[in-house]
Amino acid sequence: MRNIVLFVLLAFCNTIVAQENHSHSFGRTIIFPDIPGYKTLRCDLHQHTVFSDGSVWPDIRVMEALMDSLDAISLTEHLEYQPHKQDIPHPDRNRSYQIALREAKNHGLIVIHGSEITRKAPFGHCNAIFITDANKLLADDSIANLREAKKQGAFIFWNHPSWPSEKKDRVAVLTDLHKMLIKEKLLDGIEVANDQSFYDEALQIALDNNLTMMGTSDIHKLIDWDFGVAKGGHRPLTLVFAKEKTEAGIKEALFSRRTVVYYKNFLAGKNELLIPLIQQSLIIKSAKYKDNTDVLTVVMENKTNAEFILQNRTGFTFQNSHDIVTVKPGDKIEIEIKTMQRVNNVKLSFEILSAVKAPNSHPLVSWESPAE
Amino acid sequence: MRNIVLFVLLAFCNTIVAQENHSHSFGRTIIFPDIPGYKTLRCDLHQHTVFSDGSVWPDIRVMEALMDSLDAISLTEHLEYQPHKQDIPHPDRNRSYQIALREAKNHGLIVIHGSEITRKAPFGHCNAIFITDANKLLADDSIANLREAKKQGAFIFWNHPSWPSEKKDRVAVLTDLHKMLIKEKLLDGIEVANDQSFYDEALQIALDNNLTMMGTSDIHKLIDWDFGVAKGGHRPLTLVFAKEKTEAGIKEALFSRRTVVYYKNFLAGKNELLIPLIQQSLIIKSAKYKDNTDVLTVVMENKTNAEFILQNRTGFTFQNSHDIVTVKPGDKIEIEIKTMQRVNNVKLSFEILSAVKAPNSHPLVSWESPAE
Amino acid sequence: MRNIVLFVLLAFCNTIVAQENHSHSFGRTIIFPDIPGYKTLRCDLHQHTVFSDGSVWPDIRVMEALMDSLDAISLTEHLEYQPHKQDIPHPDRNRSYQIALREAKNHGLIVIHGSEITRKAPFGHCNAIFITDANKLLADDSIANLREAKKQGAFIFWNHPSWPSEKKDRVAVLTDLHKMLIKEKLLDGIEVANDQSFYDEALQIALDNNLTMMGTSDIHKLIDWDFGVAKGGHRPLTLVFAKEKTEAGIKEALFSRRTVVYYKNFLAGKNELLIPLIQQSLIIKSAKYKDNTDVLTVVMENKTNAEFILQNRTGFTFQNSHDIVTVKPGDKIEIEIKTMQRVNNVKLSFEILSAVKAPNSHPLVSWESPAE
Amino acid sequence: MRNIVLFVLLAFCNTIVAQENHSHSFGRTIIFPDIPGYKTLRCDLHQHTVFSDGSVWPDIRVMEALMDSLDAISLTEHLEYQPHKQDIPHPDRNRSYQIALREAKNHGLIVIHGSEITRKAPFGHCNAIFITDANKLLADDSIANLREAKKQGAFIFWNHPSWPSEKKDRVAVLTDLHKMLIKEKLLDGIEVANDQSFYDEALQIALDNNLTMMGTSDIHKLIDWDFGVAKGGHRPLTLVFAKEKTEAGIKEALFSRRTVVYYKNFLAGKNELLIPLIQQSLIIKSAKYKDNTDVLTVVMENKTNAEFILQNRTGFTFQNSHDIVTVKPGDKIEIEIKTMQRVNNVKLSFEILSAVKAPNSHPLVSWESPAE
Repeated sequence: MRNIVLFVLLAFCNTIVAQENHSHSFGRTIIFPDIPGYKTLRCDLHQHTVFSDGSVWPDIRVMEALMDSLDAISLTEHLEYQPHKQDIPHPDRNRSYQIALREAKNHGLIVIHGSEITRKAPFGHCNAIFITDANKLLADDSIANLREAKKQGAFIFWNHPSWPSEKKDRVAVLTDLHKMLIKEKLLDGIEVANDQSFYDEALQIALDNNLTMMGTSDIHKLIDWDFGVAKGGHRPLTLVFAKEKTEAGIKEALFSRRTVVYYKNFLAGKNELLIPLIQQSLIIKSAKYKDNTDVLTVVMENKTNAEFILQNRTGFTFQNSHDIVTVKPGDKIEIEIKTMQRVNNVKLSFEILSAVKAPNSHPLVSWESPAE
Repeated sequence: MRNIVLFVLLAFCNTIVAQENHSHSFGRTIIFPDIPGYKTLRCDLHQHTVFSDGSVWPDIRVMEALMDSLDAISLTEHLEYQPHKQDIPHPDRNRSYQIALREAKNHGLIVIHGSEITRKAPFGHCNAIFITDANKLLADDSIANLREAKKQGAFIFWNHPSWPSEKKDRVAVLTDLHKMLIKEKLLDGIEVANDQSFYDEALQIALDNNLTMMGTSDIHKLIDWDFGVAKGGHRPLTLVFAKEKTEAGIKEALFSRRTVVYYKNFLAGKNELLIPLIQQSLIIKSAKYKDNTDVLTVVMENKTNAEFILQNRTGFTFQNSHDIVTVKPGDKIEIEIKTMQRVNNVKLSFEILSAVKAPNSHPLVSWESPAE
Repeated sequence: MRNIVLFVLLAFCNTIVAQENHSHSFGRTIIFPDIPGYKTLRCDLHQHTVFSDGSVWPDIRVMEALMDSLDAISLTEHLEYQPHKQDIPHPDRNRSYQIALREAKNHGLIVIHGSEITRKAPFGHCNAIFITDANKLLADDSIANLREAKKQGAFIFWNHPSWPSEKKDRVAVLTDLHKMLIKEKLLDGIEVANDQSFYDEALQIALDNNLTMMGTSDIHKLIDWDFGVAKGGHRPLTLVFAKEKTEAGIKEALFSRRTVVYYKNFLAGKNELLIPLIQQSLIIKSAKYKDNTDVLTVVMENKTNAEFILQNRTGFTFQNSHDIVTVKPGDKIEIEIKTMQRVNNVKLSFEILSAVKAPNSHPLVSWESPAE
Repeated sequence: MRNIVLFVLLAFCNTIVAQENHSHSFGRTIIFPDIPGYKTLRCDLHQHTVFSDGSVWPDIRVMEALMDSLDAISLTEHLEYQPHKQDIPHPDRNRSYQIALREAKNHGLIVIHGSEITRKAPFGHCNAIFITDANKLLADDSIANLREAKKQGAFIFWNHPSWPSEKKDRVAVLTDLHKMLIKEKLLDGIEVANDQSFYDEALQIALDNNLTMMGTSDIHKLIDWDFGVAKGGHRPLTLVFAKEKTEAGIKEALFSRRTVVYYKNFLAGKNELLIPLIQQSLIIKSAKYKDNTDVLTVVMENKTNAEFILQNRTGFTFQNSHDIVTVKPGDKIEIEIKTMQRVNNVKLSFEILSAVKAPNSHPLVSWESPAE
């Protein structure tokens, strides 16, 4: 006896979470600003439903995405691993996509057709997205499947590259096979974050081989439970810098390597993308001298859900803090800079500790502002 | 790439919710005390999964139940309404039960085999639980299905009795058909609460016809979302007063009409069951006179998740309140009673406004305690 | 080394509390609407500072009042009880008032000049407010002091009338002395709530003798601590229905008996004042029939900080609740009324359990609205 | 009409705050562990009351300290600046101390006799604590007052060294006068944190001149308001490492330079004190290999109210994080270390970004643990 319209339920749930989620003034809505020239799209391109080894019907994945204000999702069912086969014979491997597409209609959520090609090491798991027919990817020969996916126009990325259970050290290593796949242009991206894991080594592999960096939930049960949403947690995401908010725009951006990974409140990406993203994420609202002093009060606002940890590289000490400053989601903070004498323009520089441009390496970001 | 053991996830989720849920000191765990002679079992006996028109695999229903600390559930798929038939042909209507049973194993959760028999008005919807084979309930003749269910030993209850879409007034009325079903012993219970609805008229029908009062979630999507769990909400439940925590114990209790319905923090049931339940739910921790006064401070503790609203019928005024007192879940409150002169024993009497023994009628409950 | 402007600090503190206080969407700001013909002014007219037996300088009392958004306060120092005399000789008994007046300047807070005349039973304690010179109220003869206060234009009320330590039963009784004071027009009001106490018997005395009902904090330490402000608590207040927000307006209203007492989230007052106050406090935002049903969904909004508990006296049952409905501060709730057939206008009637018009007696309030 | 015992009120208030303060599992109680050989005492040795330019009676300062679980306070009234002189003539400058001492009795709080000697630049403000008679410190000659204080056994520290209003740059500089005071052994310590300010330059001065580092609230109004206690804030403190919890113990420790400053959730001090403090603050609860992997899961628990920000210097990458890890107050976190192969003992090393051993310089702390 349920006739609740999806839209109403979503509004309801967002309200609940917004009220509960006091540390995030945005509730569970994930927010990142656009950067010059590009829209910043929030994408989770690795997910499962009952059509492979997940526990929900595709409508729940659509609702979760709408609650999180995502721009795009892909339901990448395992083509080969079908534990619910007894009940869901699933002869048409495009069903999960078709159902999600219908559910997402009229909600502004982009659903991208994708599948997960699943083998043992060294091949491991790969997602092919932007495919047109999953039924053609069922050959025994995994390479043949990649070629067929490519023929369909797919973007292919390597999933949880440290995972193969044979690899006890859980350290991602580029195998000869994967080197060949890259050379053959059968591999475009690599997961740097998946579910509860972050891979420093995969970040390095992406940098060394010019692969697109991906962050995904790989969700099987529920986003709310697995990522502690009620407590302020979030799923891993790929932030895609696209020329337009369309499926084609996302595809162009992914092939052009324009992504940043968002995992547990921190960012991982290439320096040239992290810098504009962080410059737009934290903005200077005002910079004014305190009466009769040479102490400049700069108000910075965090326009995102990420908590930023900053290390002062400005060249002056602060009056209200040592050199480490944190800016919680949505917060406005005051930084009191002892500029020694009054200046007309201030250049504020921070090493962004909550972002990595390479393993153990953090971007240096500056903001300039006139000082009153 | 998920191998999280059910048990671990549950522990994790409970912690999250417990920390977020400040108005309930018990987190999302639903707690009610036993009453003299009986165990109080928390049961949600009307639920759906992808095997009829729900959106989750049965494992999610088991996990939700474990998070809420339920004692028993039943996955009562519609036998006739099968909107996912294209993907889930579902020739064996016992599958949902079988899967849930396997998931619940080793977790102390009782899974009761049930099905929903679904017709238009006047028959409407009925749940038959404690059945042995759902496949035998697929006849066109709904009465024949009830007789078959009875043959299997079923307890049968009338779902959302005000709902039939032909009934614009949404007022439950006992039809001639249902009178006949009762007479023929084909109807044992009636839902007094279902999902977001409470039916005063169904409560009266239950009282007039000696039917077992049922409260159910009738969940199709997610308990967390539909009942605002992160905000302190809960699903409707049937509290079953059983001689033992077994499937047989629940069955005996249901046939013996020993239930109270718990819906949106209030209780509905027969006076003789509400009284012991409330006497055990709110307990007097101490009763002491304040120094040099005739003001008796009684400390009452709420051992449950329900918020109680009490109206003073003690015969004395209170020093710290007018005649209405609320006791939030888990709270200890102090009631200062002006007894006019010191007494050795105090009898505290309240009309329990947050419980109904009949429409607009509230039980009168008393507690006695020595006074120091 | 502190130069923080009062205004800035207040803004800061309000923000903090607003963010922490999730159950109250208004933060600690106390909000009640005006009623037809009158402004509703929030007054706390019984407070202490270091100038008698309190623990703070008058500036703290002003800041507390501004944080709570009060309209008026009075610092009613004991004239006779001066435990800090060794350090604060206090020859001029107007000092507390003078200092508070200076602190409140430019903040829109009305400071009323008052003093507490302090004797043993049967006289007890009285506050005289709107006085002009406290130094003239120091005679041994308490009645003489009342006459002098009256000469200065004072409004006089009886404090915590159940309190005298000789009265072990703590039940307020109108003594012969107080009857005489009323007769002689030396007593205008009576405290119905003081600090942690509410006096049903004082409410009856006020009704029987046409005295103004007063609610006061009688604060000695800190409002934040004594009334659990961080947890959503509030000090007792006198809501004064004044023709204008001025000292003269408050005085006229007090002499005209136009007050309601606000204590621990409930209201006490005369029926004719409670009704318009509650009608303005809870308002009907919309009343619309659900599609294809005769169920009218009425949205009510609570415009105040008080939690209302309502008992249905409308004549119809509700679809989503039994007969008791609670409306938390700032909440909008939906009430689904089964009107049996569609009506063009609905009259909603509730007994307001969280208000008392006399001991154990609750006002009946109605709202009318067109139904769509 | 207030007779609430201090003890009861404190218990009450602590409960309130504990319930509201969800980010700190300890409520407002400030907690730091002892270090080998010393007790860690929480001291706020710079405070004001109505006896100079503060706004509360000394009892409120005692209650605030008990709520925060401090070990010692000093009420350091300005000897010269007496804005309340008209009302509090204050001929005996020991009164504030005497009153606080009486209030603190039986509560285990140490009250240290102190005064603030107040001059314009270059002298500025100094606190002399452990004095015996403040009345003897009223000479016009500030140096003479220091000598008298020393004669009484005082420990003397320089307050808010960057503050003198003549110093527009607000940068602490050791003047010739202060060099002389140090040389003459008239200056023992320096405030590194005061109220809302932290002084990197004062930290360097302390290191260069072997002065005791002090952190103080310099409270004038209310701790709760000025430091956002309801929101999880705290006053600046001096953590004193004493051989015993006595006034003499604190004195010995202060003269021996054994302090760490706690300001806005971070620590400042000498490396040799920060290391043991942090080693005891964060402890390894367990270190176990995950099944069939070489990934070691280390559980660390934060035993304090401070939020720690750590940078990985272990030599291995983490599976569940990049190199920056935060540990909220009271939290237990899991760090998954990819040790490449199984080891029997693990040495975990972090640069502690939320602590400074010198301006822009952070201590390196290691923990060793057997690995299972």
